[in-house]
Amino acid sequence: MKKILAIDAGGTGSRALVLDETGRCLGYGRAGGGNPTSAGLDNAVAAIASAVGLAMEGIARQPVASSAVIALAGEDTQRFRAALSERLAPFGFPDVVVAPDLLGMFHSGSYASAGYSLIAGTGAVAARIAEGKVERLAGGTGWLLGDAGSGFWIGHLAARAVVADLDGQGPETALTPLLLGELGLTAPSGPVGEPARDSGRPRILRQLIGTLYAIRPVELSRFAPLVFRAHEDAVALRILVEASAKLASLLDLVRVPQIDGPIVVGGSVLLEGMLSAPPELAAKLVPLAAGEVLFPVPDGVVGAAVIALDRAGTTVDEELFQRIRSGLAVLRDSHRHNGSNRQDGAVTPETRDGS
Amino acid sequence: MKKILAIDAGGTGSRALVLDETGRCLGYGRAGGGNPTSAGLDNAVAAIASAVGLAMEGIARQPVASSAVIALAGEDTQRFRAALSERLAPFGFPDVVVAPDLLGMFHSGSYASAGYSLIAGTGAVAARIAEGKVERLAGGTGWLLGDAGSGFWIGHLAARAVVADLDGQGPETALTPLLLGELGLTAPSGPVGEPARDSGRPRILRQLIGTLYAIRPVELSRFAPLVFRAHEDAVALRILVEASAKLASLLDLVRVPQIDGPIVVGGSVLLEGMLSAPPELAAKLVPLAAGEVLFPVPDGVVGAAVIALDRAGTTVDEELFQRIRSGLAVLRDSHRHNGSNRQDGAVTPETRDGS
Repeated sequence: MKKILAIDAGGTGSRALVLDETGRCLGYGRAGGGNPTSAGLDNAVAAIASAVGLAMEGIARQPVASSAVIALAGEDTQRFRAALSERLAPFGFPDVVVAPDLLGMFHSGSYASAGYSLIAGTGAVAARIAEGKVERLAGGTGWLLGDAGSGFWIGHLAARAVVADLDGQGPETALTPLLLGELGLTAPSGPVGEPARDSGRPRILRQLIGTLYAIRPVELSRFAPLVFRAHEDAVALRILVEASAKLASLLDLVRVPQIDGPIVVGGSVLLEGMLSAPPELAAKLVPLAAGEVLFPVPDGVVGAAVIALDRAGTTVDEELFQRIRSGLAVLRDSHRHNGSNRQDGAVTPETRDGS
Repeated sequence: MKKILAIDAGGTGSRALVLDETGRCLGYGRAGGGNPTSAGLDNAVAAIASAVGLAMEGIARQPVASSAVIALAGEDTQRFRAALSERLAPFGFPDVVVAPDLLGMFHSGSYASAGYSLIAGTGAVAARIAEGKVERLAGGTGWLLGDAGSGFWIGHLAARAVVADLDGQGPETALTPLLLGELGLTAPSGPVGEPARDSGRPRILRQLIGTLYAIRPVELSRFAPLVFRAHEDAVALRILVEASAKLASLLDLVRVPQIDGPIVVGGSVLLEGMLSAPPELAAKLVPLAAGEVLFPVPDGVVGAAVIALDRAGTTVDEELFQRIRSGLAVLRDSHRHNGSNRQDGAVTPETRDGS
């Protein structure tokens, strides 16, 4: 039977799922970041190959026609595809097709050929899907040029608010001790309540500036969870309310009356932040799509499988879709238990049953 | 007679002025960026030495006690001072004292021991000077963390506004053709008014994003002049009005009732932008310090001379101060005429008189 390989290659992790045409999940593996833009081409290919190797453990490599799809953010380059196909040929997947990550995310939540996806992780992007293709993209222009409402955007505003607080330019905020604590900095106090100053600037501000410029700008997204934690603080709340408004507008921008939904959502800001907010915070946020059902997905690996099956000539229906989802969930669950002592790990039905 | 060396080392240029204790300007030289943080220590020291070499052309190196002051932004490191002193010892200046650039700017506009300076070039920073020292600094935390109202801030908002326009997230703006033109990009048109799209995103937006991420973020400040040029456009005007409000607040933040002024201002955003605005724009901007006299200065070289004279035991009064300013103006003017065929150039009263 034909083997199908589905890969989701993100900036922080690569996931590979091997399944057959009936939707039976055979193996799953996870490795480091597989985005060639952020990790570099060679590192990305190596990480993806490692995830695939783990997913293929104990699976026979039959010399039959196969289909492999990788869901990937950013530009699709021929050089990357060639390097990846060469690396995956020994596994029986000599032709890897690249699909937009947003399509992978969408099809992880739905097998319909039209709808919307909204992702807010480090970045923020929305897409309209029509006839199985990304028809309209909005946002996703990166930390410097857009991505309002994203993890970077939230973390950046938090960092600026703390700098403004320490500089006396902005209001005091509970974010200041939280962010300084996160960075392992503490404010030394000067005489009688006044902060200690060096050439007219508080010493702790000098230290904070030095620390923040030493990390890559995009990594300011690590402060986003602190803002959710501090949501009772006025400055933090204002950032979150504005972020929710920006994300709601982003989704609105790609919507058209002819396409109802479904609306698939993903990314840590939505899943762990906005959509997991405690009721008192949730009541203050701008709702993404009031009264409509949202389909949250953790990543694009199921979607890559849906696209790969479709390319292999298998129509994905509700039953097949649910079989993939539950099969993957079982593999992931046992992966979590067995793989707890190592960063990367593989699990197959065989090893799972035998454990 | 004692020689005095005054240096202003900025990110884009270093200026050196040699004068005597009576304020007579003897030589002036200019070379490339001399800020060790932005240019690297070795490059910075080489550029400064080159400016000093040009300023010292034709001037006798008497073995008498001398005073040298360099006005410099950023942290004062012992390594930089040691490297610079070693390099300038052959010119008769073995001990270089580093002063904050803001103090150099302030004393370029005033010999008073107290007052304010507000600089808005690529960055934005304000200072209160008291007893000849920087007592309170506000802003100047750099492009990522602050500097609202600066050239970077204005250029960054312009770039974001153009991206939002092309992405359909923001209003149409006259900044779009201006900024695309500045970068040598032109929007190809698709069928019937719709822009040409690639995977759901306008092709010109893809090109713009690629171009903007390829330059250093801080270089977005190059778009600030475009915003002033487009001030009749609503988006551009809003950026400028907000920038003027941010700069006015920054200055307010350091002001105290006990110190009246003077207020010394510098940097391209203030000198070539806000304070050179045509009347219809000026009427809409938030005034920096309504009804008060502002003292504009092009750089900190006169201030470095004032500080150096003070350290050498010479009290700078109105007469001495004006002698330095006019002497430097003469040297600079002839430098501009004689040096037009080369980037770096020196001029001394001798070469000037002889030409």
